Amino acid sequence: MSLLPPQITKVIEEFSKLPGIGPKSAERLTFHLLRSSKASPEALGKSLHELKIELKYCLNCQMVSLQEECSICADSTRDRTTILVVENPLDVVAFEKTSYKGLYHVLHGVLSPIDGMGPEQLKLKELIDRCSSGEGSGAGTDSGSLRLPSGQAGSIKEVIVATNPDVEGEATASYIHDQLKDKVEAVTRLAHGLPMGADIEFADQVTLREAVAGRRAL
Amino acid sequence: MSLLPPQITKVIEEFSKLPGIGPKSAERLTFHLLRSSKASPEALGKSLHELKIELKYCLNCQMVSLQEECSICADSTRDRTTILVVENPLDVVAFEKTSYKGLYHVLHGVLSPIDGMGPEQLKLKELIDRCSSGEGSGAGTDSGSLRLPSGQAGSIKEVIVATNPDVEGEATASYIHDQLKDKVEAVTRLAHGLPMGADIEFADQVTLREAVAGRRAL
Repeated sequence: MSLLPPQITKVIEEFSKLPGIGPKSAERLTFHLLRSSKASPEALGKSLHELKIELKYCLNCQMVSLQEECSICADSTRDRTTILVVENPLDVVAFEKTSYKGLYHVLHGVLSPIDGMGPEQLKLKELIDRCSSGEGSGAGTDSGSLRLPSGQAGSIKEVIVATNPDVEGEATASYIHDQLKDKVEAVTRLAHGLPMGADIEFADQVTLREAVAGRRAL
Repeated sequence: MSLLPPQITKVIEEFSKLPGIGPKSAERLTFHLLRSSKASPEALGKSLHELKIELKYCLNCQMVSLQEECSICADSTRDRTTILVVENPLDVVAFEKTSYKGLYHVLHGVLSPIDGMGPEQLKLKELIDRCSSGEGSGAGTDSGSLRLPSGQAGSIKEVIVATNPDVEGEATASYIHDQLKDKVEAVTRLAHGLPMGADIEFADQVTLREAVAGRRAL
């Protein structure tokens, strides 16, 4: 018999399912919510309940969105010839803080057979469609009732694969290259090298090798 | 303008209010809930919504409970002359794994003026009442409609203060000692010393001093 009432153990159990939260952290969070004046279980519960309600994914880039077309795809000032492919929506947020002004495509994961993530589980078909849909229809034929403004009609010239530099990310990049190499002018990958502020003494050998291989003229 | 829909930023915001969860962790948790097949925002939201519904605190020991009297206070086989005073309900769960067979009292916090926690914010009055209520009424007069089985009628002989060995815990223990020293036979404190499996070389000097001061005959 558990000493704690079931509604408490239920919350602890649900918190424990989250990444990086073990049973002890889950207990601490639960009792914090019971006592805290700042955080309340009702507010968190309500926001979680509403999380998926009316949540849409952009029909073009698969970014989380309130409309069927996200604000980036709808922005006519952006460069519509380049698509930057990322693993998840937060990566889009990260790149939006840089000076990148092209379009995006969110895969919602990476190829990882061990986790049951194959090409069908990712938004890969949608990416391939974006890069090939306009072929033969001719650029500039702005026809049809549904607006397809973002990189349709074979206008995509470059696909930049920005998956993480790990095993799954590299495999996914390689797969995307195979699928798209005949459809767009260039499939590129983010540069590998030393991050800003890094200390060469402590850099790993793979990063150093990539940094030498990718050296640039000053 | 935020790139993320408001229902997502709301969940991130609520997660960020929890202890040990910064903005980055909150983002990660939120997107994990959106994608994961194991953890779902609905299940966590529902459990949080129900967290406080029908949650009661034992009228005697203030432990979280489903009834007005918790299973420990209702257990007639337990030693009703001893109360172990703890900071929070999880401490009760911890002591229940030991061979302790007395009663408990949960303070729901410790004295900490900097956090606005004074004696009124804790369940201290209830503890003092438990130790003094029976005075003059005579032990064994099991009268009245409400059962008051656990350590009432002046039957408490010892109060063991099991607050954490930190500044707030020591201050709380000292306060409880002042309040109860004339009401019970003994107010005691958990032993300080080396934890099992510790390495003397790495023990701090306060712990070592306490371990020497509290040495026992073999």
